Amino acid sequence: VADLYPALAACDLSFEPHDAGIAAGADVVFLAVPHTAAMAVAPALLDAGAVVIDHSADFRLKDPAVYEKWYDVAHAAPGLIEEAVYGLPEVSRAGLADARLVACAGCYPTATSLAVVPALESGRVVGDRVVVDAKCGVAGAGRTPTPFSHYRNANEAVTPYNVAAHRHVPEIEQVMRGAAGRDVQLVFGPHLVPMTRGLLSTAYLPVEGLDLESAHEIYAARYEGEPFVSVLEPGRMPSTGDVEGSNRAHLGLAYDEHGATLIAVCAIDNLVKGSSGQAIQCANAVLGLPETTGLEAPAPVV
Amino acid sequence: VADLYPALAACDLSFEPHDAGIAAGADVVFLAVPHTAAMAVAPALLDAGAVVIDHSADFRLKDPAVYEKWYDVAHAAPGLIEEAVYGLPEVSRAGLADARLVACAGCYPTATSLAVVPALESGRVVGDRVVVDAKCGVAGAGRTPTPFSHYRNANEAVTPYNVAAHRHVPEIEQVMRGAAGRDVQLVFGPHLVPMTRGLLSTAYLPVEGLDLESAHEIYAARYEGEPFVSVLEPGRMPSTGDVEGSNRAHLGLAYDEHGATLIAVCAIDNLVKGSSGQAIQCANAVLGLPETTGLEAPAPVV
Amino acid sequence: VADLYPALAACDLSFEPHDAGIAAGADVVFLAVPHTAAMAVAPALLDAGAVVIDHSADFRLKDPAVYEKWYDVAHAAPGLIEEAVYGLPEVSRAGLADARLVACAGCYPTATSLAVVPALESGRVVGDRVVVDAKCGVAGAGRTPTPFSHYRNANEAVTPYNVAAHRHVPEIEQVMRGAAGRDVQLVFGPHLVPMTRGLLSTAYLPVEGLDLESAHEIYAARYEGEPFVSVLEPGRMPSTGDVEGSNRAHLGLAYDEHGATLIAVCAIDNLVKGSSGQAIQCANAVLGLPETTGLEAPAPVV
Amino acid sequence: VADLYPALAACDLSFEPHDAGIAAGADVVFLAVPHTAAMAVAPALLDAGAVVIDHSADFRLKDPAVYEKWYDVAHAAPGLIEEAVYGLPEVSRAGLADARLVACAGCYPTATSLAVVPALESGRVVGDRVVVDAKCGVAGAGRTPTPFSHYRNANEAVTPYNVAAHRHVPEIEQVMRGAAGRDVQLVFGPHLVPMTRGLLSTAYLPVEGLDLESAHEIYAARYEGEPFVSVLEPGRMPSTGDVEGSNRAHLGLAYDEHGATLIAVCAIDNLVKGSSGQAIQCANAVLGLPETTGLEAPAPVV
Repeated sequence: VADLYPALAACDLSFEPHDAGIAAGADVVFLAVPHTAAMAVAPALLDAGAVVIDHSADFRLKDPAVYEKWYDVAHAAPGLIEEAVYGLPEVSRAGLADARLVACAGCYPTATSLAVVPALESGRVVGDRVVVDAKCGVAGAGRTPTPFSHYRNANEAVTPYNVAAHRHVPEIEQVMRGAAGRDVQLVFGPHLVPMTRGLLSTAYLPVEGLDLESAHEIYAARYEGEPFVSVLEPGRMPSTGDVEGSNRAHLGLAYDEHGATLIAVCAIDNLVKGSSGQAIQCANAVLGLPETTGLEAPAPVV
Repeated sequence: VADLYPALAACDLSFEPHDAGIAAGADVVFLAVPHTAAMAVAPALLDAGAVVIDHSADFRLKDPAVYEKWYDVAHAAPGLIEEAVYGLPEVSRAGLADARLVACAGCYPTATSLAVVPALESGRVVGDRVVVDAKCGVAGAGRTPTPFSHYRNANEAVTPYNVAAHRHVPEIEQVMRGAAGRDVQLVFGPHLVPMTRGLLSTAYLPVEGLDLESAHEIYAARYEGEPFVSVLEPGRMPSTGDVEGSNRAHLGLAYDEHGATLIAVCAIDNLVKGSSGQAIQCANAVLGLPETTGLEAPAPVV
Repeated sequence: VADLYPALAACDLSFEPHDAGIAAGADVVFLAVPHTAAMAVAPALLDAGAVVIDHSADFRLKDPAVYEKWYDVAHAAPGLIEEAVYGLPEVSRAGLADARLVACAGCYPTATSLAVVPALESGRVVGDRVVVDAKCGVAGAGRTPTPFSHYRNANEAVTPYNVAAHRHVPEIEQVMRGAAGRDVQLVFGPHLVPMTRGLLSTAYLPVEGLDLESAHEIYAARYEGEPFVSVLEPGRMPSTGDVEGSNRAHLGLAYDEHGATLIAVCAIDNLVKGSSGQAIQCANAVLGLPETTGLEAPAPVV
Repeated sequence: VADLYPALAACDLSFEPHDAGIAAGADVVFLAVPHTAAMAVAPALLDAGAVVIDHSADFRLKDPAVYEKWYDVAHAAPGLIEEAVYGLPEVSRAGLADARLVACAGCYPTATSLAVVPALESGRVVGDRVVVDAKCGVAGAGRTPTPFSHYRNANEAVTPYNVAAHRHVPEIEQVMRGAAGRDVQLVFGPHLVPMTRGLLSTAYLPVEGLDLESAHEIYAARYEGEPFVSVLEPGRMPSTGDVEGSNRAHLGLAYDEHGATLIAVCAIDNLVKGSSGQAIQCANAVLGLPETTGLEAPAPVV
C-alpha cells in the first residue's frame, strides 16, 4: 500500500488479489470495482453472508432498463436491485439498518440530493424542471492519466463536460422523485474546475411561498442532528475548501426574489462524503455503530 | 510602469498623474477609474473633444434609478446616459460608429450576453426566467489584496458569492430585454474558481421548437464574420484555458431534450474580452479602424 | 471559532481574550503570538507554573546578540534563553523530558535540520559551506492578505525571496553546529511556490567517503523508531503532496558522484510538522505522553 | 490545427504528414521530433539546402561518447556534430550567422546558462563545483498524459526528479566549460512545481572578489543590448509569472557574504525562451532578420 500511496509511508498493509475465501469470512466487504464488475461479484459475497457496501453504480438505479440505457449493458443481477438500499444516510437511513447490500450514492448525487431534498419535500418547488450546475475537482476522474486529467489541460481552466448527458442524472432524478412525490426533470451541467478535491452543486429551484428565512428554517429542521451536514446561516455560502479531507457537507441558501428562485448550494469533498467516507458511514449505519465512527477528523484548517 | 508590472521589464513608459490639459489634447481617453469616479471626470473630457471609452459601470444602465439602487449613489451626469453607447460590439456595433462616449460591457455581461442573445433574438426561448451560472478567476477582483483574493482562501476551493445579488444582473437584463423584446428575469449565480484569468457563463435557456442542430445554426449565423467569436461544433464545449490571454470568446451548445433546455456556454478571458481588450475593440469601432487592430495575438498554446 | 474557520462548522469552541488568570491555572500554554510578543508574556506564565510551548522565534537563538541582529530588538527575557529547550524532538528529545519552556523549531529549520543532521553527525561532510534551496507554499505567510499572498501574484509563479537574508539562517546554523561539532555556513535560498501547504528543503552536502547506499544506511539508522520520519528507499524522492495535512516528514537521498555531493531532501507540511503539529509533539514529549498523541491522522490520500 | 489546439479556433492551418519533397523546397525547417529521430532526418534536409533548426538534443553535445552515455544510442550522424551551432543566441550568437544546422538549447540549459555564464566568464568563480537548483512547470513534460503530469499527482506538490541524473547536465557543463575556460562540475537538482509554464534556475556560485554591486555590473554589462534578457536591479528577484508567454529571461542576483556565494536566478517560460521562441530567435539570427521578429509580444500582465 505504501508503495502505491507514498502518503501512507508508515502503513504496513499490503494489497492482496481478490480471494473468494478471504472475502467469505468477512463481516463487511467494501466493493470498489468498476461499474459492471460489481454486479458480477456481489451475489457470491452476499451468499457467503457478508454485508456488501458497493461504490459502483450497479445497484443504484431501481429500473434495470434505465441502467441498461446509461451503462450500455444488461444488468447481470436484476434480482438484487430491489433489495439494494441506496447509500445516502441523510436520505435513506431507515432502510440501512438491516441492509445486506448498499449501493452508495455517487458524488454528484450526494451533493445535489442534499441541496434539493428539503425543498422538494416541503412541496414549495413549482414546475417540473430543476437546473443544477455542478463543479468538480479533477481527482474525481480517478488515478488513470488521461487527457481530461492531464495537468496542462485541467490547470487554469473551467470546462463543462457531459452537459445534459451525465450518467448521474437518472440517479439524482430517482432521489428527487422520492422527495417530491412526483417526476421532476433535472437539467444538469457538470464542470471540471482546477483543484484536486471538492465538489459543489448549485441548485436553482423555482419556488412559491418561500423566502430566504423560511427556506433556512426548513433546511435547518430537515438536517437537525445530522452529524455530517451543516446548514450555514443565511448570507453565508459554502466553499469546497472548507470540507476538504472531511466527510462533511456544507449547505448555503440564497433567494432570488425577482426570479422566485431558491438557490441551494452544497459543498462536499467528493473523495470522502462523495465516496469512501460515505461508504464507511453507510457501513456504520448497517452495523449499528455510531455513524461517525472512523470519520471524526475535521477538515484541516488553513 | 515596469516597476509596478515586472512583466513589462522592457517597457520604458511611465505612469503620470491625471492631467486635464494632457487629456484635453487626446483623441481617445480610456477611463479605468472606479465606479462613481468615471461620471465625475467624463463630462470635461467630452467637452474637450475626446472620445471617452469608459471601463466603469457609470454609463451602462439606461435607467438612473436602477443605477442608484445598485450603486448606492445618485447619478452625477444623468444627461450623458442616453448618449452613451454600450460597449459590446457583437451586440451594439451599429451605435459605436459615431459614439462619443462608450460604456464598455462588464466581464459577466460580456460572456453571458454572447451566450444568450442569439437564442433570445430567435424567439424560441419560453418563459420569463433564465438561469445563468457563472465561474470566474480570481484576478477579476483586482490587484488589492483582500481575504477574497488571499491565496489560501481562493486556492483549491470553489465558492459562490453575491448569489442573486450581483451588480451585473440589471446590466445583463437590459441586454436580454433588447434581444428578446420583452422582460426576462435573470437568476444569476456567480462563483469564484481557483485560477487567475478566465470567465465561463453557463446559461440554461428553456426553449421550444429548437434542438442542438437548429440552435447551432442560429448561433453560427448570428456570429458569422465576428472576428472574436467562435461557435464550436456541436458536441464540443469551450474552456477558459483556450481563450486565456486573447480577446476571443468561445461558445458551445448542448441541448437537454427531456428538460427542453438549451445550454449555451461562453468562455472569455475576463481581463481581455471582459475588460481592456474589449475597450480597444470598441475604440477601433468608434475610430473606424479594423476591430482587430492591436488585438490579433491568439491565446498562447500549451 | 467556527465563524473564523468555516471548516470547523461543527466546532462549538469560542475564542476568548487572553486572561492571565485562566492561563495561570493551565498545565500547558501554547503561545502563538508574534515574535517579540512571546518574550513579553512567557515569564508570567512560567511563574504561574505552566509549561510554555512557544511557536515564536523568541527563545530559539542561544545568543541574544544574534537575536537582536535578526529581529531588530533587544531580548526582553534573556534570563530564560538558556533554559529554553529547542522544540524539534528528533534533534532535541533528551532536553524536552523536563523542560518548562520549549522554543518550537520554525518550518524551514525543521525540514532543513532533518535533512542535514545525520550527514553532519556522521562526520562525512567536508568544507564549511552547505547550500540549501527551499520551496514553501503560500500559507506559510499567514492569514493576513498581502501582495505576497495575493492570488494573482502567487499563482502560476515560482519566486525567490529573502535569498541569503532569511531569519531562519542563524537558527539552522545553530542546529548544524550542534550536529557537526564545528561551524558550518548555510547558504540559503527560499522560494515561494504556488500551493497552499507544504515545504521542501533540498540540501546539497559536499561529502567524502559516502555513497548513496552508505548514506541511506546512516539516515535510516539515525531515524529508526522515529514515529514521524520516513527515510525513503534509495531512488525515491519525497513530495510535499504526500505529507500534506500530517505531522510526517519524508526524506529522500541522491548522490552526485562526479560532484561528490549528497543531496538530502525533506518534505513536510509547514502548517503541521513545521508548526502546530510539532508544538503538540513537543508538549507530548514534555508531559511524558506518547509523542503521537493527537497526531496519528495520516495525510489524506488522493 | 484548431482541432488539436482549441485555443487556435480561428486558425485555418492544417497538419500534414512529413513529406521530403515539401521539406526540400523550404528555406528553413524547424525539427520538433524526439531525440534520435532528429539525427535520422536532418542529413537529407541539409542536403536539400534547408537550414535546419533542431529542438532535440541530437546535435547539442560535442562529444558523441557523452551523447551515447546519456541517450543510450550511438549517434547516427556524427559527421554533423562539429558543424552544428548551439542555439542560445546570448552565448553562441557569433556562430549562428552562417549556420546550416542549429541545435537549440534545452529549457534547463537556457535558464541555467544565462544565470552562470557572466560570473564564469568573469573569472571570479572559485572551486570546481556549482550547485544549481531548478524548478519547472508541468507542461515541460509534454502533451502525453503520464503519472508525472497527472493533475492529482502534480497539483499542490513540489517534487524533485532526476536529481543528479538529468540529461541536461552534460549540456550545461559544456556551456560552463566554454565560459570558464576550465571544467566545472554541475550538481543539479531539478524539481517539478505545480504550475503549467515557467522555469526558474537558482545557481549558487562560490566566488572571490565579488559583491552584489560588482556582480550586478558584470551581469548588466554582459547582457547590455540583449533584446530578451533583463537584469533586475539589486534587491529584486525574478518570478516565472513575469515572463509567462514571452521569450524573455529575467535575471536577479543576491550575494551571501558569510558564505561568499553569489546566487544568480534566471526565470524563463520554458515553452517559449526554453523552446519554440528560442528556435525562432535562432532562425532569425541565421537568416539575418532582427532577432525579435515574431517574438515581440510581452508577457500578459495580470
